[in-house]
Amino acid sequence: MKKSLKKKAIVLLSGGMDSATCLYLAKKRGYRCFCLSFDYGQRNKKELLAARTIARCVKVRWQKVRVDFPKEKSALLDKKLALPKKRNIEAIGNDIPRTYVPARNIIFLSIAASYAETIGAEAVFIGAHSQDFSGYPDCRKEFFEKFQTMLATGTRAGVEGKAIKVFAPLLDMTKKKIVLLGASLDVPYHLTWSCYEGGKKPCGVCDACILREKGFMEAGL
Amino acid sequence: MKKSLKKKAIVLLSGGMDSATCLYLAKKRGYRCFCLSFDYGQRNKKELLAARTIARCVKVRWQKVRVDFPKEKSALLDKKLALPKKRNIEAIGNDIPRTYVPARNIIFLSIAASYAETIGAEAVFIGAHSQDFSGYPDCRKEFFEKFQTMLATGTRAGVEGKAIKVFAPLLDMTKKKIVLLGASLDVPYHLTWSCYEGGKKPCGVCDACILREKGFMEAGL
Repeated sequence: MKKSLKKKAIVLLSGGMDSATCLYLAKKRGYRCFCLSFDYGQRNKKELLAARTIARCVKVRWQKVRVDFPKEKSALLDKKLALPKKRNIEAIGNDIPRTYVPARNIIFLSIAASYAETIGAEAVFIGAHSQDFSGYPDCRKEFFEKFQTMLATGTRAGVEGKAIKVFAPLLDMTKKKIVLLGASLDVPYHLTWSCYEGGKKPCGVCDACILREKGFMEAGL
Repeated sequence: MKKSLKKKAIVLLSGGMDSATCLYLAKKRGYRCFCLSFDYGQRNKKELLAARTIARCVKVRWQKVRVDFPKEKSALLDKKLALPKKRNIEAIGNDIPRTYVPARNIIFLSIAASYAETIGAEAVFIGAHSQDFSGYPDCRKEFFEKFQTMLATGTRAGVEGKAIKVFAPLLDMTKKKIVLLGASLDVPYHLTWSCYEGGKKPCGVCDACILREKGFMEAGL
């Protein structure tokens, strides 16, 4: 199929393993992908470099978008706030963690929708999954449904009956399942970056490091 | 009432006459206001200066937030695209104009919701009105309702039963009514800026100029 005839999708690419898997899945489903990564003041800038590398790897367009967030109160943005200490895997997902950034997915998806409408893409892919991060309100199925309904009334595409679809295909998967899926799609996991800290090596104690390790362990990789 | 005991609101302040009126109305309703203005690559930067001046005038906190938008296809962002030529007042609002920026209010409201949640504000005010700008999908009542429903599921505040309210108090008002309301609230209209162009003087031919003139004419001011 000619490139220009393919249906288009915006893929939110953080540089982590979930969004990378999501990108490979969107490609597999036949979409011509356009990746967006956000520079929103996160303490970890390494994920942005990882995102660019992954996008280059699959030869898709990649764009970095800057958005100013309020720094206060999220340990993901404010280096003066400590990240949660190493905790049991069972504790992750039971509450809204200190790394919660208010309305982050809402903002990312809104900007993705704007890009989608601008280039005529019919879908937006996000690698959120609820099982491990049920603590984040904007990582749940109910939220994505309401978001899509809102898009259908608030955009030109929606008004013209071609509402942008929001896909979160990893939503109900465990980290193990995501890793197995990614492995089958040849996702270059060695290029992804998960750690919340921006150090030379992953810290090994933040939630993201723990969940990543768990995924690979359980998948036997 | 002590400042700290007042309920808080985020006010989207573009620097134009509608958002300025909206700010004065929110203050009248007893809110402690925090203003947000967006630098989103608009051709008219004068409105940002106007917004800052107005916020100073009423002694409220003001913050400028940068967001990268795709430039393509909106005459409001891309100086290579011509603004619509002077047109009859009746023609305004019948279609989605060339100045439409995909998902602009969705993005602005999302960022406002993030700020609201961060500082514990219970409301977001936006000066949108549907009568003159019915061409913009994200300036309609249905949209604001769906947006608020989405916020109730996608934010911590919502999950905890304190969902952020979105107020668009000018939504059903004519420009005339807005001007009369603003005059009664002593809104310093001489400090506001409406023109889409960023010239020394308002161009007098863009939709924003035409609607502004109409409002003052009909209000007899």
